[in-house]
Amino acid sequence: MKVIRSKAAMQRLADRLRSQGRVGFVPTMGFLHEGHLSLVRVARKRCDSVVVSVFVNPTQFGPEEDLEAYPRDFGRDRRLLGQEGVDVVFRPDAETVYPDGFATSVLVERLTRGLCGRTRPGHFSGVLTVVAKLLNIVKPDIAVFGQKDAQQALVVGRMVRDLDFDTRIVVAPTVRERDGLAMSSRNFYLTPEQRRQAPVLYRSLRLARRMVRDGERDAASVKLAMRRLIRRESGFRIDYVEVVDTGELQPVRRISGRVLVAVAAHLGRARLIDNIIMRA
Amino acid sequence: MKVIRSKAAMQRLADRLRSQGRVGFVPTMGFLHEGHLSLVRVARKRCDSVVVSVFVNPTQFGPEEDLEAYPRDFGRDRRLLGQEGVDVVFRPDAETVYPDGFATSVLVERLTRGLCGRTRPGHFSGVLTVVAKLLNIVKPDIAVFGQKDAQQALVVGRMVRDLDFDTRIVVAPTVRERDGLAMSSRNFYLTPEQRRQAPVLYRSLRLARRMVRDGERDAASVKLAMRRLIRRESGFRIDYVEVVDTGELQPVRRISGRVLVAVAAHLGRARLIDNIIMRA
Repeated sequence: MKVIRSKAAMQRLADRLRSQGRVGFVPTMGFLHEGHLSLVRVARKRCDSVVVSVFVNPTQFGPEEDLEAYPRDFGRDRRLLGQEGVDVVFRPDAETVYPDGFATSVLVERLTRGLCGRTRPGHFSGVLTVVAKLLNIVKPDIAVFGQKDAQQALVVGRMVRDLDFDTRIVVAPTVRERDGLAMSSRNFYLTPEQRRQAPVLYRSLRLARRMVRDGERDAASVKLAMRRLIRRESGFRIDYVEVVDTGELQPVRRISGRVLVAVAAHLGRARLIDNIIMRA
Repeated sequence: MKVIRSKAAMQRLADRLRSQGRVGFVPTMGFLHEGHLSLVRVARKRCDSVVVSVFVNPTQFGPEEDLEAYPRDFGRDRRLLGQEGVDVVFRPDAETVYPDGFATSVLVERLTRGLCGRTRPGHFSGVLTVVAKLLNIVKPDIAVFGQKDAQQALVVGRMVRDLDFDTRIVVAPTVRERDGLAMSSRNFYLTPEQRRQAPVLYRSLRLARRMVRDGERDAASVKLAMRRLIRRESGFRIDYVEVVDTGELQPVRRISGRVLVAVAAHLGRARLIDNIIMRA
C-alpha cells in the first residue's frame, strides 16, 4: 500500500491506475471506523484499485466547530486500510490542498439550504470544493459516500452530475453499533452516560417508520413524536428533526412517496446526525 | 473532423485521445474570427489532437445582455475549424449542458470583484461553471484562452489551479485588425462609423504605455489621459479604465512592476474590451 502526499504524484499514479482498470475512491477525514471500512469494501468489490484519502478538511468546519479537537490517528488508519487491501492512501497536508492565494469555491443551490446547511453555513461549500479537488486528483471511476451523511451524499451527487465529473457516486448504507447508534468519528466525544443516551436518535427514526407504516401521513405529527422521544433523554439539544423529499430536500407536509427522515442533535461535545429513507 | 453533441460520447473519445497523446482544447462561443483561429493554432502546434467547443453559454450573459443577438454561424465555424486541422468539434445544446434541476456554480473570490466583474455580476461564475464542465468532458492537457479577455484568462487559471484540474491554461496574444482593434465576435455589432471609432480603445492603451515609458507612475494621471482620448470619439460610454496588478487584479495607485491596463466601453450595441500588460 502506497502513501502519497503530493498532488502531482497522485495524478500521475491515477492516470496509470485508471488506464489499467476501474478505480474506486473513498474520501475520509481519517479516524476510521467500521462505517468507513464498509465504504472501502464496496470500492474493493467493484474496482481494480482502491484509493482512500485521509484529510481533515478545515474549510468544512465552522469557526465555532471542532476542527482542532477532531480525532486523528493515522497509524491506526493506515493499519486498517492495509488490512482492507487498499492500494493507495492519499494524505496531503493543508498547505498542499489550500496554497496561498486560494480563491475558488463550489456551491450547490437549494439542496444545501435546509437540514445541516441551515446551522452550518459554508459547510457544504467546503465539502464540495474539497471533493471537486479530490476527484480531479484521484480521477476515480466511482467514489463511495455513506448514507449516514445523507445530505452530503445527495449534494455531492448533484455537483458531480452538474459539473460532468467522469465519476459515479455510490452511496453505501449506514453502519450501526449493536444498539443502533450510527457509527461516526464524533461518537468518540461521548461520555459513557452520553453514549448510553445516543441511540435514542435512531429509535426516533424507527418510531417515525412505525408511525408511517401504521398510516400516519402528517409530517408535523411524526416530527413532534420524534422530538418527544428524544427529549426523554436529558442533555440533547436538537438541531433539527425533518421530513424532506429525496430530490431537492424540501420539507414535506404530507408524507407520500419516498422521503428522508433526518435528525441532528448536540449531545455534550458531539453533534450527532442520523437518517432513514422510507416510502409511504 | 468529428462533430460531437453528446457529453458521454465526448468523454469516451477524450479518454482515447488522451491515452494516445497530448490533447489541446479551445473553448469558444462560435462565430469564429482570426483571434479564435490563433488559439487553435497554438493548440495544434503543441498537441497531438485538438478539440474545439462551440457553445453560446447562456449563464455568462446578464439579463440585459446580448444572448439572443449573439451572432452564430456554425456552417462557417465548421469550415474554418476543418481548415485548421481540428480533430473534434464539441457542440452540445443548452439542454444537454444545463438539464433540469441544475444547481451548481463555481466562484472565484477577489479576482472577479473588479473590472468586468463589477458591471457584469454573475458573468464569471457562468464562465467558470461552464469551463469546469468542459474540462471534465474534454479532459485536455492544455486549454488555450485569449489575452483579449485578460480577466477571464486569469480567473480561469486561478480556478484550474485551485480545483487541481489536470489541465494547463495557456494564454495566447490578442489578435488585432490592421488599425489595432482587438478581434471580437461583438465587433459584428458595429456600424461602419462605429467601426471607424472603435480603435481608439487600443490607442488609449498605447498612450498609457508611452506615458509609463516616459516616466509617469501615477495611475490616476494615466487613466485620466486615456479617458480623455476615448471621449474625443463621440458615442462611447466608458465602463471602466483601470490599472491593476496582474496577480489579484487590484487597482494600483503607483505603477511599478507588472500591471494590466484594461478598458471596457459600450459603443452602439457592442460592449468592447481591450487590455495590455506592461512593466514599469
